[in-house]
Amino acid sequence: MNEISDALLHCQPNAPAIGNGDIVTPWTVVSESIEGPDYDKLVKRFGCQKIDDDLIRRICSLTGQQAHHLLRRRIFFAHRELGLVLDLYEKGHSFYLYTGRGPSSSSMHLGHLIPFIFTKYLQDAFDVPLIIQLTDDEKFLWKDMSVSEAMAMAFENIKDIIAVGFDPAKTFVFSNFCFMGQCPEFYRTMVSIQRNVTFNQVRGIFGFNESDSIGKIAFPAAEAAPCFSSTFPFLFNGRSDVPCLIPCAIDQDPYFRMARDVAPKLGFVKPSMIYSTFIPSLQGAKTKMSASDPNSSIYLTDSAAQIKKKINKYAFSGGRDTIEEHRKFGGNCDVDISYQYLRYLLEDDEEMEQLRVDYSSGALLTGDLKRRLIDEVQKIVLEHSHRRAQVTDETVKQFTQIRPLKYTYSAPARAKK
Amino acid sequence: MNEISDALLHCQPNAPAIGNGDIVTPWTVVSESIEGPDYDKLVKRFGCQKIDDDLIRRICSLTGQQAHHLLRRRIFFAHRELGLVLDLYEKGHSFYLYTGRGPSSSSMHLGHLIPFIFTKYLQDAFDVPLIIQLTDDEKFLWKDMSVSEAMAMAFENIKDIIAVGFDPAKTFVFSNFCFMGQCPEFYRTMVSIQRNVTFNQVRGIFGFNESDSIGKIAFPAAEAAPCFSSTFPFLFNGRSDVPCLIPCAIDQDPYFRMARDVAPKLGFVKPSMIYSTFIPSLQGAKTKMSASDPNSSIYLTDSAAQIKKKINKYAFSGGRDTIEEHRKFGGNCDVDISYQYLRYLLEDDEEMEQLRVDYSSGALLTGDLKRRLIDEVQKIVLEHSHRRAQVTDETVKQFTQIRPLKYTYSAPARAKK
Repeated sequence: MNEISDALLHCQPNAPAIGNGDIVTPWTVVSESIEGPDYDKLVKRFGCQKIDDDLIRRICSLTGQQAHHLLRRRIFFAHRELGLVLDLYEKGHSFYLYTGRGPSSSSMHLGHLIPFIFTKYLQDAFDVPLIIQLTDDEKFLWKDMSVSEAMAMAFENIKDIIAVGFDPAKTFVFSNFCFMGQCPEFYRTMVSIQRNVTFNQVRGIFGFNESDSIGKIAFPAAEAAPCFSSTFPFLFNGRSDVPCLIPCAIDQDPYFRMARDVAPKLGFVKPSMIYSTFIPSLQGAKTKMSASDPNSSIYLTDSAAQIKKKINKYAFSGGRDTIEEHRKFGGNCDVDISYQYLRYLLEDDEEMEQLRVDYSSGALLTGDLKRRLIDEVQKIVLEHSHRRAQVTDETVKQFTQIRPLKYTYSAPARAKK
Repeated sequence: MNEISDALLHCQPNAPAIGNGDIVTPWTVVSESIEGPDYDKLVKRFGCQKIDDDLIRRICSLTGQQAHHLLRRRIFFAHRELGLVLDLYEKGHSFYLYTGRGPSSSSMHLGHLIPFIFTKYLQDAFDVPLIIQLTDDEKFLWKDMSVSEAMAMAFENIKDIIAVGFDPAKTFVFSNFCFMGQCPEFYRTMVSIQRNVTFNQVRGIFGFNESDSIGKIAFPAAEAAPCFSSTFPFLFNGRSDVPCLIPCAIDQDPYFRMARDVAPKLGFVKPSMIYSTFIPSLQGAKTKMSASDPNSSIYLTDSAAQIKKKINKYAFSGGRDTIEEHRKFGGNCDVDISYQYLRYLLEDDEEMEQLRVDYSSGALLTGDLKRRLIDEVQKIVLEHSHRRAQVTDETVKQFTQIRPLKYTYSAPARAKK
């Protein structure tokens, strides 16, 4: 309970808990269970849908390729009206992807990478434009830092995001503190949203209270605005009816629930979403990986030695107390952090299944599993750092410049619900 | 009391009354007294200072000219730390003027003109740059209109404002819906203010409640941001220490009280203010002239015949019931709208004094006084319409273009309090 009270104390004191000892808000994810939040309950409470086999088969058939392992393994596990976007796509109409992040430290961690890896898959598979928002204004409002510190973090994070490998011809990246001063439609859409949301509503949705700053209270509209294509007249030729699909972790649902509520009042198309679970902290799934706790996270700047040390020292084990017991009774994959991280990172389903069988039976020891994870993480971080080194200030300019993106949009207005 | 309850119902239900039956907020001015709000009480409640003879003498001596009649007659009657700006000015350091308006209809009325006439005097007398904000976002948030309707109103109002005769080399005019997308520092300053103000504070200052939109709740920061020179890097070379003087009606005090509270937390200079009373409605000083009530207002687009008819028909008279009684007991200048309007409009002190003596004695009848007012208003409106006709879209571009203004700023940081 300490972690939970701490989280409540430092984030949103009135954050609505989802029951079951779990708290999931855009600023806090904590669970009383070592297996992490109860995602079934979460889906029910938020009122979204789980992704089923039919939906995955449909994505495969529409994109003509195997579903991404993050989708196959239900790490991206829930959605809101994903089917509607697919219906339109099937008829030859395009959509755009929107995702983002709050720059919380100048170095991103492994967990931050996951939604971007999945977003890249979606961009490539569907061949659609992508918009990425850095909420430097949010970080400034929630943390003790200056505007320029928040902007500097956003700039560094943008380099990491670009290093994921997005197509510069189809990707627009911006930070709020910069873009708000470049595109009047951003502020106009934001204020239009703000006109249709009351304090009572953001209190209910986000847990704000009367002592919160009016900056926090108003901020949700800044994250919601890019759900609507009218925010980007230079991309969508002034159309306000281009559908938006948002891949992100499920803790961001409150923002997009709010955006969907407001959309009809503004004559806009409701955005659709596809949601992931949270990558757990090294210490276990009671909390998610957090950039502010170096021991809970593997940073994209960690050296091979640091990665090895962190995993060996901190990665929570689902193994037994002694080798003898482990060999006899086997380990518990559900709580083992090394196994869980491999689910996020290792593409090969056969190897994953073998690891699961061997660890559960006791044939594989925690040390073996950690070694496999260390190899994989070292490889990913090294490759990322190579790509990151190629990203210059000039590359950032290329991605953040206001410009049309290369894609064909041929859709009529999406059927209003 | 009906007017008061109406005002409360349609504007801010929790607007803090100033006692005495008067309500003065940025959205409502109503009084139970036919003489209008009790300005002494207002000054005390808001915690600002009245302008005294010494201050006026000082302004005359610093500018080397007679004080404007709006100042001589205490229509601009109160201030906050005006002396500080004058101290600096005396030492050869410059300041800038900031004023604005909420575009409430495409035609401005006589009352809207007053602060701009006074601002022009200040600009000319002190030879300082001037910033004029059109809060089209505010009007959009408070009224039932679209973004483009609010922007169109702002555009029309800008033409009327320019027609007052401001120096284009020293005046920058903007609307929030446009400028926010042109200058990143505006949003950054606005969010910095928002971080330092809570919902409880805006509830106390403006009377917002939990059912108000988060747009309204956040808006005060948009009006406060131009108090700080850092919002205009292209004017002040990035300096955040150029003092600001705001001439406006006293109902705007809540915004600038808030700005002054926040300033030290942001390392900014507190703005100084000089406040006017409200020009009463034609029906009397219980309410102020309102653009939304055509019978209460004289619009700058009214014809000579309309002006004559409105004043004759609606201007509340301080005269007696019969000519005999009037000749015997005299009229009451304190409540007579024609006399009160002439105080705002007629520069000649001698003529004003003669009118007062004659009306109070009964020598002058209400009809005579109305005739004098009609002449004056017709002249002012006609001259304004001639100047207004000269203002082209090109002129608007000239005033609203982001550019340095022509003036020398030589000030060190203003002494922090």
